[in-house]
Amino acid sequence: MSMENGASWRLAVETNNIQSWSTVPELCLPYVKNYMLEGQYHRDLDVIIAEMYDYMKSITIKNDGKDIWILDVDDTCISNLKYYEGKRFGGDPFDPVMFKSWILKESCPAIPSMLKFYKKLIESGFKVFLITGRDEMQLGSSTALNLFLQGFEGHERLIMRSSKYRGQSAVKFKSAIRKELVGEGYRIHGNVGDQWSDLTGDYIGAHTFKIPNPMYFVT
Amino acid sequence: MSMENGASWRLAVETNNIQSWSTVPELCLPYVKNYMLEGQYHRDLDVIIAEMYDYMKSITIKNDGKDIWILDVDDTCISNLKYYEGKRFGGDPFDPVMFKSWILKESCPAIPSMLKFYKKLIESGFKVFLITGRDEMQLGSSTALNLFLQGFEGHERLIMRSSKYRGQSAVKFKSAIRKELVGEGYRIHGNVGDQWSDLTGDYIGAHTFKIPNPMYFVT
Repeated sequence: MSMENGASWRLAVETNNIQSWSTVPELCLPYVKNYMLEGQYHRDLDVIIAEMYDYMKSITIKNDGKDIWILDVDDTCISNLKYYEGKRFGGDPFDPVMFKSWILKESCPAIPSMLKFYKKLIESGFKVFLITGRDEMQLGSSTALNLFLQGFEGHERLIMRSSKYRGQSAVKFKSAIRKELVGEGYRIHGNVGDQWSDLTGDYIGAHTFKIPNPMYFVT
Repeated sequence: MSMENGASWRLAVETNNIQSWSTVPELCLPYVKNYMLEGQYHRDLDVIIAEMYDYMKSITIKNDGKDIWILDVDDTCISNLKYYEGKRFGGDPFDPVMFKSWILKESCPAIPSMLKFYKKLIESGFKVFLITGRDEMQLGSSTALNLFLQGFEGHERLIMRSSKYRGQSAVKFKSAIRKELVGEGYRIHGNVGDQWSDLTGDYIGAHTFKIPNPMYFVT
Protein backbone atom coordinates (compact mmCIF):
# COMPACT_ATOMS: atom_id res chain seq x y z
CA MET A 1 0.00 0.00 0.00
CA SER A 2 1.21 3.46 -0.81
CA MET A 3 1.50 5.41 2.39
CA GLU A 4 1.91 8.72 0.66
CA ASN A 5 -1.75 9.57 0.72
CA GLY A 6 -2.21 10.67 4.30
CA ALA A 7 -5.83 11.69 3.77
CA SER A 8 -6.77 8.21 2.51
CA TRP A 9 -4.88 6.54 5.31
CA ARG A 10 -6.61 8.69 7.92
CA LEU A 11 -10.05 8.00 6.41
CA ALA A 12 -9.34 4.26 6.47
CA VAL A 13 -8.32 4.52 10.13
CA GLU A 14 -11.32 6.63 11.12
CA THR A 15 -13.74 4.17 9.47
CA ASN A 16 -12.15 1.18 11.24
CA ASN A 17 -10.92 -0.26 7.94
CA ILE A 18 -7.33 -0.31 9.16
CA GLN A 19 -7.24 -2.05 12.52
CA SER A 20 -4.55 -3.01 15.02
CA TRP A 21 -1.94 -0.63 13.65
CA SER A 22 0.88 0.25 16.01
CA THR A 23 2.41 3.48 14.67
CA VAL A 24 1.48 6.09 12.10
CA PRO A 25 3.31 5.26 8.84
CA GLU A 26 6.40 7.46 8.44
CA LEU A 27 5.14 8.96 5.19
CA CYS A 28 1.91 10.05 6.89
CA LEU A 29 3.57 11.81 9.84
CA PRO A 30 3.66 15.30 8.30
CA TYR A 31 0.03 14.89 7.29
CA VAL A 32 -1.07 13.82 10.80
CA LYS A 33 0.88 16.65 12.47
CA ASN A 34 -0.73 19.14 10.14
CA TYR A 35 -4.17 17.61 10.72
CA MET A 36 -3.89 17.86 14.50
CA LEU A 37 -2.36 21.32 14.71
CA GLU A 38 -3.56 23.35 11.75
CA GLY A 39 -7.30 23.42 12.36
CA GLN A 40 -8.89 20.48 10.57
CA TYR A 41 -9.03 18.34 13.74
CA HIS A 42 -10.94 21.06 15.55
CA ARG A 43 -13.21 21.72 12.58
CA ASP A 44 -14.00 18.00 12.45
CA LEU A 45 -14.72 18.01 16.19
CA ASP A 46 -17.04 20.99 15.82
CA VAL A 47 -19.15 19.24 13.19
CA ILE A 48 -19.43 16.07 15.29
CA ILE A 49 -20.37 17.97 18.42
CA ALA A 50 -22.96 20.02 16.52
CA GLU A 51 -24.44 16.71 15.37
CA MET A 52 -24.44 15.42 18.96
CA TYR A 53 -26.33 18.55 20.06
CA ASP A 54 -28.97 18.04 17.37
CA TYR A 55 -29.37 14.40 18.29
CA MET A 56 -29.47 15.16 22.02
CA LYS A 57 -32.23 17.73 21.51
CA SER A 58 -34.30 15.17 19.59
CA ILE A 59 -34.43 12.76 22.56
CA THR A 60 -37.37 12.79 24.95
CA ILE A 61 -36.14 12.09 28.48
CA LYS A 62 -38.25 9.96 30.79
CA ASN A 63 -36.99 11.64 33.98
CA ASP A 64 -36.53 8.32 35.72
CA GLY A 65 -32.78 8.89 35.81
CA LYS A 66 -32.14 6.11 33.30
CA ASP A 67 -31.38 8.17 30.19
CA ILE A 68 -27.63 8.13 29.84
CA TRP A 69 -24.68 8.97 27.65
CA ILE A 70 -21.36 7.20 27.78
CA LEU A 71 -18.19 9.16 27.17
CA ASP A 72 -14.68 7.84 26.90
CA VAL A 73 -11.99 9.84 28.75
CA ASP A 74 -8.64 9.95 26.87
CA ASP A 75 -8.82 12.10 23.75
CA THR A 76 -12.57 12.29 24.07
CA CYS A 77 -13.00 14.46 27.19
CA ILE A 78 -9.38 15.34 27.94
CA SER A 79 -6.51 15.53 25.50
CA ASN A 80 -3.17 13.75 25.26
CA LEU A 81 -2.12 15.82 22.26
CA LYS A 82 0.64 17.54 24.25
CA TYR A 83 2.12 14.15 25.12
CA TYR A 84 1.90 12.89 21.56
CA GLU A 85 3.64 15.99 20.25
CA GLY A 86 6.71 14.54 21.91
CA LYS A 87 6.06 11.18 20.28
CA ARG A 88 5.99 12.51 16.70
CA PHE A 89 2.18 12.46 16.70
CA GLY A 90 2.08 8.69 16.80
CA GLY A 91 5.23 8.02 14.81
CA ASP A 92 6.91 6.46 17.85
CA PRO A 93 5.69 3.19 19.34
CA PHE A 94 3.52 3.26 22.46
CA ASP A 95 5.61 3.88 25.56
CA PRO A 96 3.66 2.65 28.60
CA VAL A 97 6.11 3.98 31.20
CA MET A 98 6.26 7.51 29.77
CA PHE A 99 2.53 7.55 29.15
CA LYS A 100 1.82 6.56 32.75
CA SER A 101 4.04 9.35 34.05
CA TRP A 102 2.24 11.78 31.74
CA ILE A 103 -1.11 10.72 33.19
CA LEU A 104 0.19 11.01 36.76
CA LYS A 105 0.93 14.69 36.06
CA GLU A 106 -2.87 15.15 36.07
CA SER A 107 -2.57 17.81 33.42
CA CYS A 108 -4.42 16.53 30.37
CA PRO A 109 -6.34 19.60 29.21
CA ALA A 110 -10.07 19.44 28.54
CA ILE A 111 -11.20 19.36 24.94
CA PRO A 112 -13.16 22.62 25.23
CA SER A 113 -16.00 21.81 22.83
CA MET A 114 -16.54 18.45 24.55
CA LEU A 115 -16.56 20.01 28.01
CA LYS A 116 -19.28 22.38 26.82
CA PHE A 117 -21.29 19.48 25.45
CA TYR A 118 -20.77 17.47 28.65
CA LYS A 119 -22.21 20.32 30.71
CA LYS A 120 -25.14 20.65 28.31
CA LEU A 121 -25.89 16.92 28.67
CA ILE A 122 -26.08 17.19 32.46
CA GLU A 123 -28.13 20.39 32.32
CA SER A 124 -30.54 18.66 29.96
CA GLY A 125 -31.18 15.87 32.45
CA PHE A 126 -29.01 13.10 31.07
CA LYS A 127 -26.80 11.05 33.35
CA VAL A 128 -23.23 10.88 32.11
CA PHE A 129 -21.03 7.83 32.59
CA LEU A 130 -17.32 8.16 31.92
CA ILE A 131 -15.80 4.81 31.01
CA THR A 132 -12.06 4.50 30.56
CA GLY A 133 -9.59 1.69 30.12
CA ARG A 134 -7.18 3.45 32.49
CA ASP A 135 -6.19 1.20 35.39
CA GLU A 136 -8.25 2.06 38.46
CA MET A 137 -5.68 1.10 41.08
CA GLN A 138 -2.73 2.89 39.51
CA LEU A 139 -4.42 5.88 37.89
CA GLY A 140 -7.76 6.23 39.65
CA SER A 141 -7.10 9.25 41.85
CA SER A 142 -5.03 11.08 39.22
CA THR A 143 -7.75 10.60 36.64
CA ALA A 144 -10.52 11.75 38.96
CA LEU A 145 -8.51 14.82 39.95
CA ASN A 146 -7.50 15.66 36.38
CA LEU A 147 -11.14 15.51 35.26
CA PHE A 148 -12.26 17.66 38.21
CA LEU A 149 -9.56 20.27 37.64
CA GLN A 150 -10.60 20.52 34.01
CA GLY A 151 -14.25 21.09 34.84
CA PHE A 152 -15.72 17.63 34.33
CA GLU A 153 -17.99 17.58 37.37
CA GLY A 154 -21.39 16.08 37.98
CA HIS A 155 -21.11 12.80 36.09
CA GLU A 156 -23.02 9.88 37.52
CA ARG A 157 -20.01 7.54 37.54
CA LEU A 158 -16.39 7.37 36.50
CA ILE A 159 -15.82 3.71 35.64
CA MET A 160 -12.22 2.60 35.31
CA ARG A 161 -10.59 -0.73 34.60
CA SER A 162 -10.63 -2.73 37.81
CA SER A 163 -8.35 -5.69 38.43
CA LYS A 164 -11.12 -7.97 37.15
CA TYR A 165 -10.64 -6.60 33.64
CA ARG A 166 -6.87 -6.20 33.63
CA GLY A 167 -5.33 -7.53 30.43
CA GLN A 168 -8.65 -7.67 28.61
CA SER A 169 -9.19 -5.78 25.38
CA ALA A 170 -11.05 -2.48 25.59
CA VAL A 171 -13.86 -3.96 23.48
CA LYS A 172 -14.40 -6.76 26.02
CA PHE A 173 -14.04 -4.56 29.09
CA LYS A 174 -16.30 -1.79 27.80
CA SER A 175 -18.89 -4.25 26.46
CA ALA A 176 -19.06 -5.91 29.88
CA ILE A 177 -19.55 -2.57 31.63
CA ARG A 178 -22.26 -1.51 29.18
CA LYS A 179 -24.02 -4.83 29.63
CA GLU A 180 -24.09 -4.20 33.39
CA LEU A 181 -25.49 -0.71 32.89
CA VAL A 182 -28.23 -1.96 30.57
CA GLY A 183 -28.92 -4.66 33.17
CA GLU A 184 -29.41 -1.85 35.72
CA GLY A 185 -32.10 -0.42 33.43
CA TYR A 186 -30.10 2.40 31.87
CA ARG A 187 -30.89 3.47 28.30
CA ILE A 188 -27.69 4.34 26.42
CA HIS A 189 -28.65 7.12 24.02
CA GLY A 190 -25.20 8.28 23.01
CA ASN A 191 -21.81 6.62 23.13
CA VAL A 192 -18.80 8.80 22.38
CA GLY A 193 -15.19 7.75 21.92
CA ASP A 194 -12.06 8.30 19.88
CA GLN A 195 -11.46 4.55 19.42
CA TRP A 196 -13.64 2.01 17.63
CA SER A 197 -13.06 -0.22 20.65
CA ASP A 198 -15.31 2.26 22.51
CA LEU A 199 -18.04 1.88 19.92
CA THR A 200 -18.06 -1.78 18.89
CA GLY A 201 -18.92 -4.97 20.75
CA ASP A 202 -22.13 -5.40 22.75
CA TYR A 203 -24.72 -2.83 23.86
CA ILE A 204 -23.05 -0.05 21.90
CA GLY A 205 -25.98 2.32 22.42
CA ALA A 206 -28.52 3.96 20.15
CA HIS A 207 -26.06 6.32 18.47
CA THR A 208 -22.28 6.16 18.43
CA PHE A 209 -20.02 9.13 17.78
CA LYS A 210 -16.43 8.61 16.65
CA ILE A 211 -14.08 11.41 17.70
CA PRO A 212 -11.08 11.72 15.36
CA ASN A 213 -7.76 10.29 16.48
CA PRO A 214 -5.16 9.45 13.85
CA MET A 215 -2.34 9.12 16.42
CA TYR A 216 -2.89 5.72 18.03
CA PHE A 217 -5.04 2.60 18.03
CA VAL A 218 -6.43 0.75 21.06
CA THR A 219 -7.71 -2.80 20.60
CA MET B 1 -23.91 23.43 12.14
CA SER B 2 -21.81 25.16 9.55
CA MET B 3 -22.11 23.21 6.34
CA GLU B 4 -19.22 24.99 4.70
CA ASN B 5 -16.66 22.49 5.80
CA GLY B 6 -17.31 19.67 3.35
CA ALA B 7 -14.34 17.63 4.55
CA SER B 8 -15.64 17.60 8.14
CA TRP B 9 -19.16 16.75 7.01
CA ARG B 10 -17.89 13.87 4.89
CA LEU B 11 -15.74 12.49 7.74
CA ALA B 12 -18.75 12.65 10.09
CA VAL B 13 -20.82 10.74 7.52
CA GLU B 14 -18.13 8.13 6.86
CA THR B 15 -17.71 7.45 10.60
CA ASN B 16 -21.49 7.04 11.09
CA ASN B 17 -21.65 10.13 13.29
CA ILE B 18 -24.26 11.74 11.04
CA GLN B 19 -27.05 9.25 10.50
CA SER B 20 -30.37 9.24 8.66
CA TRP B 21 -29.56 12.21 6.45
CA SER B 22 -31.62 12.54 3.29
CA THR B 23 -29.63 14.81 0.98
CA VAL B 24 -26.13 16.24 0.85
CA PRO B 25 -26.22 19.78 2.32
CA GLU B 26 -26.25 22.39 -0.48
CA LEU B 27 -23.02 23.97 0.72
CA CYS B 28 -21.24 20.60 0.54
CA LEU B 29 -22.31 19.77 -3.04
CA PRO B 30 -19.25 21.24 -4.78
CA TYR B 31 -17.03 19.40 -2.29
CA VAL B 32 -18.77 16.05 -2.85
CA LYS B 33 -18.67 16.41 -6.64
CA ASN B 34 -14.99 17.19 -6.49
CA TYR B 35 -14.39 14.28 -4.12
CA MET B 36 -16.10 11.77 -6.40
CA LEU B 37 -14.65 12.97 -9.71
CA GLU B 38 -11.23 14.44 -9.05
CA GLY B 39 -9.37 11.43 -7.71
CA GLN B 40 -9.68 11.36 -3.93
CA TYR B 41 -12.53 8.81 -3.98
CA HIS B 42 -10.41 6.42 -6.02
CA ARG B 43 -7.32 7.04 -3.91
CA ASP B 44 -9.39 6.28 -0.79
CA LEU B 45 -10.69 3.09 -2.43
CA ASP B 46 -7.16 2.01 -3.30
CA VAL B 47 -5.99 2.29 0.31
CA ILE B 48 -8.99 0.33 1.61
CA ILE B 49 -8.58 -2.41 -0.97
CA ALA B 50 -4.85 -2.66 -0.26
CA GLU B 51 -5.78 -3.14 3.41
CA MET B 52 -8.32 -5.82 2.45
CA TYR B 53 -5.59 -7.66 0.50
CA ASP B 54 -3.24 -7.59 3.47
CA TYR B 55 -5.96 -8.83 5.79
CA MET B 56 -7.09 -11.51 3.33
CA LYS B 57 -3.54 -12.83 3.01
CA SER B 58 -3.28 -13.10 6.82
CA ILE B 59 -6.22 -15.53 7.05
CA THR B 60 -5.65 -19.29 7.14
CA ILE B 61 -8.43 -21.03 5.24
CA LYS B 62 -9.79 -24.31 6.54
CA ASN B 63 -10.81 -25.59 3.09
CA ASP B 64 -14.17 -26.81 4.35
CA GLY B 65 -15.90 -24.22 2.17
CA LYS B 66 -17.04 -22.23 5.18
CA ASP B 67 -14.61 -19.30 4.98
CA ILE B 68 -16.56 -16.45 3.48
CA TRP B 69 -16.61 -12.77 2.68
CA ILE B 70 -19.77 -10.72 2.34
CA LEU B 71 -19.90 -7.94 -0.21
CA ASP B 72 -22.66 -5.43 -0.72
CA VAL B 73 -23.63 -4.72 -4.35
CA ASP B 74 -24.57 -1.05 -4.98
CA ASP B 75 -21.56 1.25 -4.82
CA THR B 76 -19.46 -1.56 -3.41
CA CYS B 77 -19.17 -3.93 -6.40
CA ILE B 78 -20.92 -1.89 -9.07
CA SER B 79 -21.27 1.87 -9.25
CA ASN B 80 -24.26 4.19 -9.38
CA LEU B 81 -22.07 7.24 -9.78
CA LYS B 82 -23.34 7.85 -13.33
CA TYR B 83 -26.90 7.96 -12.03
CA TYR B 84 -26.01 10.27 -9.14
CA GLU B 85 -24.24 12.68 -11.50
CA GLY B 86 -27.74 13.47 -12.75
CA LYS B 87 -28.93 13.95 -9.18
CA ARG B 88 -26.33 16.58 -8.24
CA PHE B 89 -24.22 13.93 -6.44
CA GLY B 90 -26.83 13.49 -3.76
CA GLY B 91 -28.14 17.05 -3.66
CA ASP B 92 -31.56 15.90 -4.91
CA PRO B 93 -33.82 13.71 -2.76
CA PHE B 94 -33.98 9.97 -3.44
CA ASP B 95 -36.16 9.24 -6.47
CA PRO B 96 -37.28 5.60 -6.27
CA VAL B 97 -38.94 5.53 -9.73
CA MET B 98 -35.94 6.94 -11.58
CA PHE B 99 -33.53 4.82 -9.56
CA LYS B 100 -35.47 1.68 -10.40
CA SER B 101 -35.39 2.48 -14.11
CA TRP B 102 -31.63 3.09 -13.83
CA ILE B 103 -31.14 -0.34 -12.29
CA LEU B 104 -33.32 -1.98 -14.95
CA LYS B 105 -30.86 -0.66 -17.56
CA GLU B 106 -28.44 -3.26 -16.17
CA SER B 107 -25.55 -0.93 -16.83
CA CYS B 108 -23.99 -0.13 -13.48
CA PRO B 109 -20.26 -0.35 -14.19
CA ALA B 110 -17.98 -2.46 -12.02
CA ILE B 111 -15.75 -0.65 -9.56
CA PRO B 112 -12.53 -1.94 -11.15
CA SER B 113 -10.41 -2.26 -8.01
CA MET B 114 -13.22 -4.15 -6.26
CA LEU B 115 -13.72 -6.52 -9.18
CA LYS B 116 -10.02 -7.34 -9.02
CA PHE B 117 -10.25 -7.99 -5.29
CA TYR B 118 -13.40 -10.09 -5.75
CA LYS B 119 -11.57 -12.33 -8.23
CA LYS B 120 -8.61 -12.60 -5.86
CA LEU B 121 -10.92 -13.68 -3.04
CA ILE B 122 -12.37 -16.51 -5.10
CA GLU B 123 -8.96 -17.58 -6.42
CA SER B 124 -7.72 -17.68 -2.82
CA GLY B 125 -10.42 -20.15 -1.84
CA PHE B 126 -12.93 -17.89 -0.10
CA LYS B 127 -16.62 -18.15 -0.84
CA VAL B 128 -18.18 -14.81 -1.71
CA PHE B 129 -21.72 -13.89 -0.76
CA LEU B 130 -23.26 -10.82 -2.35
CA ILE B 131 -26.01 -9.40 -0.16
CA THR B 132 -28.11 -6.53 -1.43
CA GLY B 133 -31.23 -4.72 -0.30
CA ARG B 134 -32.44 -4.64 -3.92
CA ASP B 135 -35.89 -6.19 -4.28
CA GLU B 136 -35.56 -9.76 -5.54
CA MET B 137 -38.86 -9.95 -7.40
CA GLN B 138 -38.54 -6.65 -9.24
CA LEU B 139 -34.80 -6.40 -9.75
CA GLY B 140 -33.50 -9.94 -9.40
CA SER B 141 -32.80 -10.83 -13.02
CA SER B 142 -31.49 -7.36 -13.91
CA THR B 143 -29.10 -7.41 -10.97
CA ALA B 144 -27.81 -10.89 -11.74
CA LEU B 145 -27.29 -9.95 -15.40
CA ASN B 146 -25.63 -6.63 -14.58
CA LEU B 147 -23.18 -8.36 -12.23
CA PHE B 148 -22.43 -11.07 -14.80
CA LEU B 149 -21.88 -8.57 -17.62
CA GLN B 150 -19.45 -6.66 -15.41
CA GLY B 151 -17.40 -9.74 -14.59
CA PHE B 152 -18.72 -10.67 -11.15
CA GLU B 153 -18.89 -14.43 -11.68
CA GLY B 154 -18.31 -17.34 -9.35
CA HIS B 155 -19.85 -16.07 -6.15
CA GLU B 156 -21.47 -18.65 -3.92
CA ARG B 157 -24.78 -16.79 -3.64
CA LEU B 158 -26.44 -13.56 -4.61
CA ILE B 159 -28.89 -12.84 -1.80
CA MET B 160 -31.51 -10.20 -2.47
CA ARG B 161 -34.39 -8.83 -0.43
CA SER B 162 -37.24 -11.34 -0.66
CA SER B 163 -40.86 -10.44 0.09
CA LYS B 164 -40.29 -11.64 3.68
CA TYR B 165 -37.99 -8.69 4.31
CA ARG B 166 -39.82 -6.04 2.29
CA GLY B 167 -40.14 -2.77 4.21
CA GLN B 168 -37.53 -3.76 6.78
CA SER B 169 -34.44 -1.67 7.36
CA ALA B 170 -31.23 -2.82 5.74
CA VAL B 171 -29.69 -3.37 9.19
CA LYS B 172 -32.48 -5.79 10.13
CA PHE B 173 -32.57 -7.57 6.78
CA LYS B 174 -28.81 -7.97 6.49
CA SER B 175 -28.44 -9.00 10.15
CA ALA B 176 -31.05 -11.72 9.63
CA ILE B 177 -29.28 -13.04 6.54
CA ARG B 178 -25.90 -13.06 8.30
CA LYS B 179 -27.43 -14.86 11.26
CA GLU B 180 -28.67 -17.57 8.88
CA LEU B 181 -25.25 -17.87 7.27
CA VAL B 182 -23.52 -18.21 10.64
CA GLY B 183 -26.18 -20.78 11.52
CA GLU B 184 -25.14 -22.71 8.42
CA GLY B 185 -21.61 -22.81 9.81
CA TYR B 186 -20.06 -20.07 7.68
CA ARG B 187 -17.25 -17.97 9.14
CA ILE B 188 -17.58 -14.34 8.02
CA HIS B 189 -14.01 -13.05 7.71
CA GLY B 190 -14.69 -9.85 5.81
CA ASN B 191 -17.79 -7.72 5.41
CA VAL B 192 -17.63 -4.93 2.84
CA GLY B 193 -20.16 -2.21 2.17
CA ASP B 194 -20.59 1.47 1.40
CA GLN B 195 -23.28 1.92 4.08
CA TRP B 196 -23.00 1.48 7.84
CA SER B 197 -26.26 -0.49 7.60
CA ASP B 198 -24.14 -3.16 5.87
CA LEU B 199 -21.68 -3.21 8.75
CA THR B 200 -23.74 -2.78 11.94
CA GLY B 201 -26.31 -4.97 13.67
CA ASP B 202 -25.71 -8.66 14.39
CA TYR B 203 -23.00 -11.03 13.15
CA ILE B 204 -21.11 -8.24 11.41
CA GLY B 205 -18.09 -10.45 10.75
CA ALA B 206 -14.50 -10.45 11.96
CA HIS B 207 -13.48 -7.34 10.01
CA THR B 208 -15.68 -4.71 8.40
CA PHE B 209 -14.59 -2.44 5.56
CA LYS B 210 -16.44 0.80 4.90
CA ILE B 211 -16.31 1.90 1.26
CA PRO B 212 -16.70 5.69 0.87
CA ASN B 213 -20.07 7.04 -0.21
CA PRO B 214 -20.88 10.66 0.58
CA MET B 215 -23.88 10.73 -1.83
CA TYR B 216 -26.65 8.92 0.02
CA PHE B 217 -27.61 7.18 3.27
CA VAL B 218 -29.50 3.89 3.66
CA THR B 219 -31.04 3.06 7.04
